Amino acid sequence: MSFSSIAILGPGLLGGSLALAVRERMRGVEIRVWARREESAQRARAMGLGDAVSTDAAEIAKGAGLILFCMPIGGMPEVAEQIAGVVERDALVTDVGSVKQPVVERLGRIFRGRAEFVGSHPMAGSDQSGLEAARGDLFQGAVSIVTPEDGTKKETIEAVANFWEKVGCRVAIATPRAHDEAVAVVSHLPHLAAAALVQAALRENPAALDWRGNGFLDTTRVASGPPAMWAEILIENRVAMKKAIHAMIENLAEVSKLLDAEDLGAVELYLAEARLARDRIKKKAIS
Amino acid sequence: MSFSSIAILGPGLLGGSLALAVRERMRGVEIRVWARREESAQRARAMGLGDAVSTDAAEIAKGAGLILFCMPIGGMPEVAEQIAGVVERDALVTDVGSVKQPVVERLGRIFRGRAEFVGSHPMAGSDQSGLEAARGDLFQGAVSIVTPEDGTKKETIEAVANFWEKVGCRVAIATPRAHDEAVAVVSHLPHLAAAALVQAALRENPAALDWRGNGFLDTTRVASGPPAMWAEILIENRVAMKKAIHAMIENLAEVSKLLDAEDLGAVELYLAEARLARDRIKKKAIS
Repeated sequence: MSFSSIAILGPGLLGGSLALAVRERMRGVEIRVWARREESAQRARAMGLGDAVSTDAAEIAKGAGLILFCMPIGGMPEVAEQIAGVVERDALVTDVGSVKQPVVERLGRIFRGRAEFVGSHPMAGSDQSGLEAARGDLFQGAVSIVTPEDGTKKETIEAVANFWEKVGCRVAIATPRAHDEAVAVVSHLPHLAAAALVQAALRENPAALDWRGNGFLDTTRVASGPPAMWAEILIENRVAMKKAIHAMIENLAEVSKLLDAEDLGAVELYLAEARLARDRIKKKAIS
Repeated sequence: MSFSSIAILGPGLLGGSLALAVRERMRGVEIRVWARREESAQRARAMGLGDAVSTDAAEIAKGAGLILFCMPIGGMPEVAEQIAGVVERDALVTDVGSVKQPVVERLGRIFRGRAEFVGSHPMAGSDQSGLEAARGDLFQGAVSIVTPEDGTKKETIEAVANFWEKVGCRVAIATPRAHDEAVAVVSHLPHLAAAALVQAALRENPAALDWRGNGFLDTTRVASGPPAMWAEILIENRVAMKKAIHAMIENLAEVSKLLDAEDLGAVELYLAEARLARDRIKKKAIS
């Protein structure tokens, strides 16, 4: 795979960071940026983010060898419809959405017979959002999960995987469903749990928030993420989320019973297993 | 209040950090350290932690103007019994336990008529533990909650509050029960939730742990704390914890229903309220 032009649709935290990463690591590749609002386009122009910046999606996508959807999931189909008629026949199309089954189904259908689509989810982000928070090294060391369906061409998977590696990611391959179930547990549930911890404190004992230590601030950090984006993610991934929430509730209820029984050994074992598993993945993160 | 000698019973993370803080900020005060095991005493001596270090609690406590219990809650009564006969009549006695009702009841009874006891809980800590992790600035800016009972003398409360301010804390006053209910929500529940998130992932989808991002690592950081200590804390505070766990389960179940109903607006509101509350306390932490 090689292409001389990349279209980035949506210059937010991820789209902006991708533009910066492509500029740094894929010299010679033209960067084309679409923004929904003229105000965002102007900001992208002022930053020198792309070689071409426009609010006309078809104009930006036309002729691009790789097209990246970097906007909230709900807005993707409309933009896909706008560009589907003008994209190159062999163009690669992917997205950065945090939920894959609904995206792959909707965009897959729109681009069928028109371009080569495969979903992606680079697991990079921060509690900040927007172009202002964009960084060229945001993807450095992050896992990017590429989610082919049965009919996806091997060359498409390889080309998109290759792109993610070029911007600094480690690549994993999974079906859209396996992806959604996994991120429900390691990303979406922690986000909800963080918000629920703040809400539980607000409702049970709001004055107690004055006494929060660093532990509370760490545990709830992701609750400072953008609510509209996260509400959409949780709802799009609701089938897997319901299972994950149920597992969390069962775990909490189990410990509640152990506390009732004053079963010190069993509580210690529960905590020790969790610590061991966490320390193992933390080490992986450092290496 | 003034005293020329402080006894620190238990040179772990908190006791060791207190010794360092007293050395730095209360010049001229003698530091006496008791350790349960000779090995710990030798380590404390090697670090020059105290002016006197011994495994004989009565020897260390005798003559001290302030006696600090810095050991796990369960071990406190036994050591209290060992020293109760030798402490000065006007000695101040306090502790650093994370749960206050059981400690205040047990130690209060042992020292009644023998010394002036009031409970404390400096909310300083880290996911590390032990003397190796001790730092003289651990208490800098931390809240220390002093928990008098009905009969506690005003001078005792003031003297102990004054000590915590000297080592860098902001002081709050609360009844043991109000303390326990508050920390259940802002400290013990987050700890349990962190462990439950790791356990839910392990049980539902262990392979997913390979895809954890920074959000998962932050949200579960406190799960790396010492399991034996935390199991004891959760069980000692089981009455307040049951209420807190119940509140968390109700919050999770509520969101699960909103996801089922695909109620985007309500989920966004839930997340936005949590973000607002968290950002407010985060700002306080910085200022």
